[in-house]
Amino acid sequence: MRSINVRDYGILPGEGRDNVFALRSLLDEIRPEDGIELVFPEGIYHFFEENAAEILLFIPNHDEDGIKKVAFDLTGMKHLTITGNHSTFQFHTELIPFLIRDCDTVEIRGISLDYVRPGYSQGVILSCSPMSMTIQVDPKEFPYFVKGRRLYFVGENYCHELVRWMELDKDFQKPVYGLVDRTFNLEDAGEAALWSEIEPGVLKVELMEGERPFEEDSKPGDYLILRHHPRSAPAFYAENSTRISLTDVDIYHATGMGVIAQRTEDMVLCRVRIMRHPIKKHVFSAEADGLHFVSCKGMIRIKDCLIENQLDDPINIHGVYGKIVKVMENGSFFVRLVHHQQKGAILLKDGEPFRLLDPETMLPVAESAAVHVKRLNRDVLLVEPRDILPSVKEGWALENMEWIPDVLIEGCTMRNNRARGILPTSAGEVVIRNNVFQVPGAGVLIEGDCRSWFESGAVKHIQILDNLFDCCAYIPNWGYAPIQISPGTSRYVEGKAYHGTVEIRKNTFRCMDKRLLFAKNVETILWKDNIIEHADTYPPNDGEAFTLEHVLNVKR
Amino acid sequence: MRSINVRDYGILPGEGRDNVFALRSLLDEIRPEDGIELVFPEGIYHFFEENAAEILLFIPNHDEDGIKKVAFDLTGMKHLTITGNHSTFQFHTELIPFLIRDCDTVEIRGISLDYVRPGYSQGVILSCSPMSMTIQVDPKEFPYFVKGRRLYFVGENYCHELVRWMELDKDFQKPVYGLVDRTFNLEDAGEAALWSEIEPGVLKVELMEGERPFEEDSKPGDYLILRHHPRSAPAFYAENSTRISLTDVDIYHATGMGVIAQRTEDMVLCRVRIMRHPIKKHVFSAEADGLHFVSCKGMIRIKDCLIENQLDDPINIHGVYGKIVKVMENGSFFVRLVHHQQKGAILLKDGEPFRLLDPETMLPVAESAAVHVKRLNRDVLLVEPRDILPSVKEGWALENMEWIPDVLIEGCTMRNNRARGILPTSAGEVVIRNNVFQVPGAGVLIEGDCRSWFESGAVKHIQILDNLFDCCAYIPNWGYAPIQISPGTSRYVEGKAYHGTVEIRKNTFRCMDKRLLFAKNVETILWKDNIIEHADTYPPNDGEAFTLEHVLNVKR
Repeated sequence: MRSINVRDYGILPGEGRDNVFALRSLLDEIRPEDGIELVFPEGIYHFFEENAAEILLFIPNHDEDGIKKVAFDLTGMKHLTITGNHSTFQFHTELIPFLIRDCDTVEIRGISLDYVRPGYSQGVILSCSPMSMTIQVDPKEFPYFVKGRRLYFVGENYCHELVRWMELDKDFQKPVYGLVDRTFNLEDAGEAALWSEIEPGVLKVELMEGERPFEEDSKPGDYLILRHHPRSAPAFYAENSTRISLTDVDIYHATGMGVIAQRTEDMVLCRVRIMRHPIKKHVFSAEADGLHFVSCKGMIRIKDCLIENQLDDPINIHGVYGKIVKVMENGSFFVRLVHHQQKGAILLKDGEPFRLLDPETMLPVAESAAVHVKRLNRDVLLVEPRDILPSVKEGWALENMEWIPDVLIEGCTMRNNRARGILPTSAGEVVIRNNVFQVPGAGVLIEGDCRSWFESGAVKHIQILDNLFDCCAYIPNWGYAPIQISPGTSRYVEGKAYHGTVEIRKNTFRCMDKRLLFAKNVETILWKDNIIEHADTYPPNDGEAFTLEHVLNVKR
Repeated sequence: MRSINVRDYGILPGEGRDNVFALRSLLDEIRPEDGIELVFPEGIYHFFEENAAEILLFIPNHDEDGIKKVAFDLTGMKHLTITGNHSTFQFHTELIPFLIRDCDTVEIRGISLDYVRPGYSQGVILSCSPMSMTIQVDPKEFPYFVKGRRLYFVGENYCHELVRWMELDKDFQKPVYGLVDRTFNLEDAGEAALWSEIEPGVLKVELMEGERPFEEDSKPGDYLILRHHPRSAPAFYAENSTRISLTDVDIYHATGMGVIAQRTEDMVLCRVRIMRHPIKKHVFSAEADGLHFVSCKGMIRIKDCLIENQLDDPINIHGVYGKIVKVMENGSFFVRLVHHQQKGAILLKDGEPFRLLDPETMLPVAESAAVHVKRLNRDVLLVEPRDILPSVKEGWALENMEWIPDVLIEGCTMRNNRARGILPTSAGEVVIRNNVFQVPGAGVLIEGDCRSWFESGAVKHIQILDNLFDCCAYIPNWGYAPIQISPGTSRYVEGKAYHGTVEIRKNTFRCMDKRLLFAKNVETILWKDNIIEHADTYPPNDGEAFTLEHVLNVKR
């Protein structure tokens, strides 16, 4: 392995110094080589978007598809190691820090990663009444202006209206009991509100007449994460790659998820920390999920990670359900990607096995493989099946049966984020052990549906062992219980269930109420050796300890 | 030439029948062939976006770059004729009707083209006062809703807030004397306004306190073109092609320009009519310019065209100025495309000649050719020049000297549109003869600047002959006189001028005031045998017959 000191290529630390062109030239030079280590001597390196590579990407579960600028475009790299020596990489929007595409064996270690001006802003509540609030925002760190009674935030190269916020508790910086997100002034959601600046750094929002008032649980002193940026650019995006590892990587911010991988085989994430910046006193980290895996295979190993204060689930692993929209006379059929954030996802390729599901029961009704898949556009595929499938119906769901990972998540802490904990919908062997869940929704949520999110698939065997569920599901909109299994079916079939076996053993549940497990449509649940403790952290929510519906076997 | 009846390929007329997949299959089949005529028997054919080809495009002078869906993707076609037999092609947003890319000898004739739900809407003013108006909008033809006192219009697959309107005279459907566009609620422009629906089909807009009031020239009965859609998709986009002709083509609507060509050689547009729909009673046609040519060469011939009621200039021909932003030690330099609608434009390729201009005088200071051009992204190119150019300075403008067309525009009528008439900034031989200009701004505007639009270039020889300028420039914001020459320089050089020779002969000027010619920074103006008539159509505007500044020679 050849080792390169990046400073020999003009990549140098320094405020205001843009390293993108030098980095890009270096990456282009080494791209054909196999076995390179890029060494960054410790320092703070800046990367601007001006000269960055621009690549057409369809990043699943993100808001926007299209051309994106990328700092570290690692496309096509083989046996590459990037050694950061605790360097800080400072990115400037709009820029995807790392694209790992068509790679084999890439390791990135020892860096921390931040944006000079994040895509979100924050404020503190000064006063609240049912129909108005005043909030304090630092206009130097989070520049804004009010025009036409609309509030806009300004970044290095963006200007967006405020459309959403989430309130965090002033003492612990976690979502407040009794609240969920607030949305403002969207065409299809949210309260109509008018903004004004009553003095520099003090903003007033007034809800229009007839709008839903602010809740009593909102309190002066609480933080607001002000959400005004699209979910555009993850810190790391891996696609169509093999053997990718991130070690000792701190992600303080991303204008998207922390790490997202699609169609990637064998990933190791060790001591990846998606966390609040230790000096900046931000109450948010990434704009969306922490770690997200779509249609991966091999082994996903997530070890000793910290995922806190990001604006959506810490870990989500799933495939994608396509929807058959038209069957042709020759037996080929058109399949549509339905959810707007899945447009362009790689659902199926030539030769890959698939199965079809009845969307009401989500039980398999046929299986075959694709002889040929033609991608018509990011919405629609035309699939020629290997077998004659005479009964194929419009409306059925299609699921790829090759890209299914095994998963091991251990030693991780998830806390203070929006929404849930781990969403492990994979038909591989899944082990979730020795983690700490301090999240407002379900700690583990096992779903799968083909009517809203279109995230597959059915769990075969999942083990939830030795974890601490610490006051989870205190915001019931995000979870009925610390562990929730709730696939989106509309009908059950006697003797059959969507999910397979879920073992829940030796976990500790610290709970403020009775709720432990909410489970529907599961073949077997094993509940054994779990410890239940009482906590007074939040007021109790209603619900039984065990809510079970169409669970075929319960073992205790 | 092999002739194909498209009905043999399942492309059939009929309401609700989507022909895109059959068309796409047919085009893919014939793409390798040389010499095909596609015959559409007369009928109304529909094209939806669901199964359309999706292509990454950077369309100059349009709002959005990125992946666009295309109905007729003619990429790579050689000697193709599409014969419409007066068929109507009905498109459904978002869809570019025709992409003519990397083509040689393509002719399209005998079609009319429309959208089922256009990107714009229209209304009629019911009442006006300084701070509010009520307007009538047909909610069936132009569906809308008011939410949070914001007005949204809904299309087949879009929902956009109203941000702009233009008022048209109730009798003649042309822009109203005394007015220009009105913009609402944008973050960087426009009046703050609140909307309400006071009864079905009747909307009220109220300007917020302190905003600029509505003008007295606004009148009940006048039409409003309600602009709520990005300039996203021209009816025809030609790129990197040769010998393209459109004959007998009627364009009733496009969510962008009528026809735009970039880097295309030899085009003939004959009896292309960008016009109001004869039955629908729309007061608008295309969302933006009629015909637009960026960095073309060979001959552009525009004959017997009608261009009316579109939302920007009827004909605009220009190149692009890039801006040198950094010079490297080895003499290579970075060139940025500055205007946001020019991002991704093809400025310069390997081997092509260029010249550099001082941005203050816009006079050439150096010339050379590119040995190698590396496109870093849609913003920036890295140019390696053939010659050592020791004095190259950051801030200089770069202009391509190969892609410069000759132009003949004759027999055309331009009327009732927003803005100006013809913008012929080309250093080729340009002839504008026998046209009728009934436009609110300058009939002919010759500019060029490298500080705002960055549209090149300097005119060498232009003849304006036998035209009728019928009450042009009645809205002075869009023109100081029927003919205006006003390059955007900030300093003159004694004895040198930016534009070359402009001959103005045998034209008829029907004018409501004295203004005929406004000219700055021209080497030679020839003014001969022009007829001036008086008209009372509009109140007079201030100004002399001839306003000349830094015109080196005047011949009469």
